[in-house]
Amino acid sequence: MKKIVVIPGDGIGKEVMEAALLVLDALDLDFEYEFAEAGHECFQKYGDTIPEETIRLVKGADATLFGAVTTVPGEKSAIITLRRELDLFVNLRPVRSLPGVGGLFSGLDFVIVRENTEDLYVGLEEYTGDGAVAKRVITRRACKRICKFAFDYAVDEGFERVAAVHKANVLKKTDGIFREEFYKVARNYPGIKAEDFYVDAMAMYLIKKPREFEVIVTTNMFGDILSDEAAALVGGLGVAPSANIGKKHGIFEPVHGSAPKIAGKNIANPTAMILSTTLMLKHLKKKKEATLIEKALKKTLKKGIKTPDIGGKHTTTQVAQAIRDELIKIKDHD
Amino acid sequence: MKKIVVIPGDGIGKEVMEAALLVLDALDLDFEYEFAEAGHECFQKYGDTIPEETIRLVKGADATLFGAVTTVPGEKSAIITLRRELDLFVNLRPVRSLPGVGGLFSGLDFVIVRENTEDLYVGLEEYTGDGAVAKRVITRRACKRICKFAFDYAVDEGFERVAAVHKANVLKKTDGIFREEFYKVARNYPGIKAEDFYVDAMAMYLIKKPREFEVIVTTNMFGDILSDEAAALVGGLGVAPSANIGKKHGIFEPVHGSAPKIAGKNIANPTAMILSTTLMLKHLKKKKEATLIEKALKKTLKKGIKTPDIGGKHTTTQVAQAIRDELIKIKDHD
Ligand SMILES: CC(C)[C@H](C(=O)O)[C@@H](O)C(=O)O
Ligand SMILES: CC(C)[C@H](C(=O)O)[C@@H](O)C(=O)O
Repeated sequence: MKKIVVIPGDGIGKEVMEAALLVLDALDLDFEYEFAEAGHECFQKYGDTIPEETIRLVKGADATLFGAVTTVPGEKSAIITLRRELDLFVNLRPVRSLPGVGGLFSGLDFVIVRENTEDLYVGLEEYTGDGAVAKRVITRRACKRICKFAFDYAVDEGFERVAAVHKANVLKKTDGIFREEFYKVARNYPGIKAEDFYVDAMAMYLIKKPREFEVIVTTNMFGDILSDEAAALVGGLGVAPSANIGKKHGIFEPVHGSAPKIAGKNIANPTAMILSTTLMLKHLKKKKEATLIEKALKKTLKKGIKTPDIGGKHTTTQVAQAIRDELIKIKDHD
Repeated sequence: MKKIVVIPGDGIGKEVMEAALLVLDALDLDFEYEFAEAGHECFQKYGDTIPEETIRLVKGADATLFGAVTTVPGEKSAIITLRRELDLFVNLRPVRSLPGVGGLFSGLDFVIVRENTEDLYVGLEEYTGDGAVAKRVITRRACKRICKFAFDYAVDEGFERVAAVHKANVLKKTDGIFREEFYKVARNYPGIKAEDFYVDAMAMYLIKKPREFEVIVTTNMFGDILSDEAAALVGGLGVAPSANIGKKHGIFEPVHGSAPKIAGKNIANPTAMILSTTLMLKHLKKKKEATLIEKALKKTLKKGIKTPDIGGKHTTTQVAQAIRDELIKIKDHD
């Protein structure tokens, strides 16, 4: 029995979570779900965007599903807090073409491995006389473990190259260290081709030659930007999943936010959340189940059953129900 | 008589500069050129990537053309030094579709206004116990003047909206200030629509809906990344020009670097450098001449006379010569 904590959050977070659970439920998994709160509504109730109780539950779980939260200026970011508190040092963002989602490229299959605990995300900012200063913190330890993860992932998934992305021509010390640690780790993986690129060049290459990349590893902020760019290549935020992974814990969430503008309309694309559950299943060593969901999702998309953001006219619930139906069919054939 | 300082620099910097001057020469302009050195070869000769003499010349000029330099680890960046020494606080990067360059979109015409003096580019980095820390410096003064430039530019060029790009959900103080100053400045331009976006969202929107943007204003590093991404939409680095502009001075340079791998082969695309000279001409209030060059360039591209990077088979010199010939023809018709 696996304990799964479910944090629907705010806005469309709740809608896509309901959809994803509807799909998951069709696989008779030995999961026990526990619901927890976080985000802006949670703040309004308890004065905290991420209560101790939620953190405690997440720490005790085998995995956590996270929908999306609204972050209001002045309130603490629930997801950044969770990433840091649980030392979820990897933010894994697969970029894979799907049928019928209006991506610019077909046949893309690469992954961005984003460092998830430091860089400009450490929250060390101070006002100065006429402005403010933020600290970009980079440690060898964090560089090493994220690079190691990237190479191990390449080996596990049968990829042959890993590209480091940095701006060491300007950030000579911080990104100099990142590049150095990258090549140190690379030495232990002689079968994998290691290369490095400037972040501005990579922002261009993702568009000009995305097929040349397999695993891209980078620091936190560059990873944030590049992964949204990459998501656009394969259809946008509606279909981009992510996994926050640490030594012990994992939180699986769509890349998109709570999208207040479309919340409550039952039109949010559940694909990103559903794909995030497949990342969770893989993490829990349930690769077969993950593949079943992927198949059902692709079949549904091919039939044109999809939400408006990718050119469809179905509701969140209809899409989820269709995927669930496909899943049950496929499963029974198995 | 205008004094123009010419810094060819390293690698293809020299080749594209020669090409650009060949084109410029066809317009009988009252320009006096002075050549100056900078970059890696300059370092090897004088032990300095950006000698005092070069800075002195640039300071005394009406405008400067800059090719590209090679920056070797351990050597000071010539262009960053120039931007800072001359207080060239604007980095203007127009994104315009050209015929026959293999861009993803046609009809694009927007501009990125990148702050050019602060952010992570201030060079304040220090090693720590197990890593390093870089400072991201943001001042109200710099935010204000770059935003003011963006709105003035919108008014001058007949644009109707300005979009600020930041990451104020994470960089609450530094980018909070940027956003605040942006909206303060916006109040003085009631005819212009002001909006703001997170940098990760913008990295996606540039691909999903680039036609919705006209003037984008942002801090230094985000501008670096987004402008390379945007360049990819309209054909890549071979065709992306830029202007570094301050109160008194202007340095005009292609976005691309010195490209050591293709240097010496006479295959570098001179388009970016040539378009940079048109930005200089506009800056010197020679709008008519700038337009003539743009026309000659477009005609040449339409004829398929272009370098290999954009699918052609002509040399740098052939392309430059063809543009020059067109220019002479158009000019005589005028
Ligand atoms: C909401 C925000 C703090 C977050 C981030 O910047 O990491 C989001 O953009 C993401 O990519 O998960
Ligand atoms: C060469 C490098 C320092 C420079 C920058 O980052 O500004 C370049 O990428 C640019 O965009 O002009």
